[in-house]
Amino acid sequence: MKVDGRWRRTIELADDRRSVIVLDQQRLPFEVRWLRLAELAEVARAIRDMHVRGAPLIGATAAYGVAIALDHGIALPAACAELAATRPTAVNLAWALGEMRRAIAAGEGAWAAAARIADADVACCEAIGTHGLALFARDRVNRVLTHCNAGWLATVDWGTALAPIYKAHEAGIRVHVWVDETRPRNQGVLTAWELAQHGVPHTVIADNAGGHLMQRGEVDLCIVGTDRTTAAGDVCNKIGTYLKALAARDCGVPFYAAVPSSSIDWTIASPDAIPIEQRSGDELRFVRGVEVIPAASPVANPAFDVTPHRLVTGLVTERGIAAPGELRALFPERAS
Amino acid sequence: MKVDGRWRRTIELADDRRSVIVLDQQRLPFEVRWLRLAELAEVARAIRDMHVRGAPLIGATAAYGVAIALDHGIALPAACAELAATRPTAVNLAWALGEMRRAIAAGEGAWAAAARIADADVACCEAIGTHGLALFARDRVNRVLTHCNAGWLATVDWGTALAPIYKAHEAGIRVHVWVDETRPRNQGVLTAWELAQHGVPHTVIADNAGGHLMQRGEVDLCIVGTDRTTAAGDVCNKIGTYLKALAARDCGVPFYAAVPSSSIDWTIASPDAIPIEQRSGDELRFVRGVEVIPAASPVANPAFDVTPHRLVTGLVTERGIAAPGELRALFPERAS
Repeated sequence: MKVDGRWRRTIELADDRRSVIVLDQQRLPFEVRWLRLAELAEVARAIRDMHVRGAPLIGATAAYGVAIALDHGIALPAACAELAATRPTAVNLAWALGEMRRAIAAGEGAWAAAARIADADVACCEAIGTHGLALFARDRVNRVLTHCNAGWLATVDWGTALAPIYKAHEAGIRVHVWVDETRPRNQGVLTAWELAQHGVPHTVIADNAGGHLMQRGEVDLCIVGTDRTTAAGDVCNKIGTYLKALAARDCGVPFYAAVPSSSIDWTIASPDAIPIEQRSGDELRFVRGVEVIPAASPVANPAFDVTPHRLVTGLVTERGIAAPGELRALFPERAS
Repeated sequence: MKVDGRWRRTIELADDRRSVIVLDQQRLPFEVRWLRLAELAEVARAIRDMHVRGAPLIGATAAYGVAIALDHGIALPAACAELAATRPTAVNLAWALGEMRRAIAAGEGAWAAAARIADADVACCEAIGTHGLALFARDRVNRVLTHCNAGWLATVDWGTALAPIYKAHEAGIRVHVWVDETRPRNQGVLTAWELAQHGVPHTVIADNAGGHLMQRGEVDLCIVGTDRTTAAGDVCNKIGTYLKALAARDCGVPFYAAVPSSSIDWTIASPDAIPIEQRSGDELRFVRGVEVIPAASPVANPAFDVTPHRLVTGLVTERGIAAPGELRALFPERAS
């Protein structure tokens, strides 16, 4: 996608072909800076400290991290263990590391395997965008609400929840995006920034505002991403997603999650079993380095919630759109 | 209530008995500062710029504003017009101005009438606290979620939503309060500050987190304030309240609003007719003077939403707790 008018990806092979360049999402949108990751520890830190973020991009970054680690003589199990420990919730991370182990065991080069994982993410997201086009009306402005950033910044390219929006915008379909600020880390400003790079009209709102907008008939459609979705269609995503799904149900607004199959956990029995990352309270306490909640006040910061499948209208995958109970029909090789 | 261990009210007559002293809520909790308001324009600005805030306190402040204006030779209608224009949503403002007009027409002194309105607010809030005690269990920690600040900072004393919590705490009942941050203006830090002044255990959370906490069974009770409630029990309150009410209903958590009768609008036909204040986008864009949403991003900032009565378990008034459809039974003089 475009960064200052140039076509880029969020993670690219560096010129030395022994390291990668990633767009530093900690400074965005206030500063566009690229980071070079040349060591396993740098890759692990970039994931843990959310210089890269978004489940698909974390997976691709971890895959390149394995290649970097092997180049430095670090054993595959040790590299995978260090990378797997960086973020607990995203299933893509475990998936990408498993895929790297499988590929390397099968004789594929680590760098080639990582590039393949990255390319596959791009193709997957683009397919989600193409299938998601069906959600848009051609004869009016489509007012879409999204939460957090599930755009191309969260993937290698295209994004998940935003891919249908980019495809619609490219096709001349009118779209306006309500962008949830997404406290505590304010990823909404990333969504606004990338939409602006492509000229997609949008408005940033407080996380509190979406329900009211739905009540007043100002939202036609919700599309969010996911960090992990169960086979039954329960959607684990950024904290606050559940509240928007409740409002959508209450107001008759369709609620979709964009779900690359790499983020589907086919094995988990109950959404209650999804571990919910409790992140540092400092994320809530400080915004851009300024203390917004005094040190004297205790804080809690659960990072994700689970939207039960009964609140989900459909799941937009790279193979098409499924009702929550019908995911396995799109992925018969996963049928139990 | 207590400020740094001293018993104070949020608005007090100054020593000159011709002006008032108010606790400046724009600096709180980072700085405790008192403002002297000696002119009508200062009172209007204090309300408009939210140096004082909370529907009941706005009403009391406006009442004193009328007394100050008359002292300066400003005509009653002009004073009321200027004060009425400061904030559109709070019904208490119109109520207090009407009460001042009535009292003055009946020959009561303006300062005496304003003091009476302030004292009545204190008595009303304390009664809400006493009635609200019935919502708490005596044999366990009561985990209460609240949104915005409907504590004593929002009233002359005691608060509305927090009055039952203070009464419970005083009675030795264990309480822990989940405090919504309440973007964009972060009134949650005011709630945390006043709870801390009284030693009530609490934890500040992002507005996005409350639904997840309810899903996980970590909330026993929601109590919020209101800026305007219809006779049918539809609760207009700080933006985001509706989302918490939806989650409470979905998770089987009782959802109460603390409703002084001065905030009941007996005449409005439909909650859709309540004007929703659209406040400056700068409230969202800047936090403590730091830009958190870049100037390039459009923003919208609706300040209130309406929680339909079907989501409300009960309304805690100064005369007792009513189911939403039974408000008129508590206030038979209002029966139509």
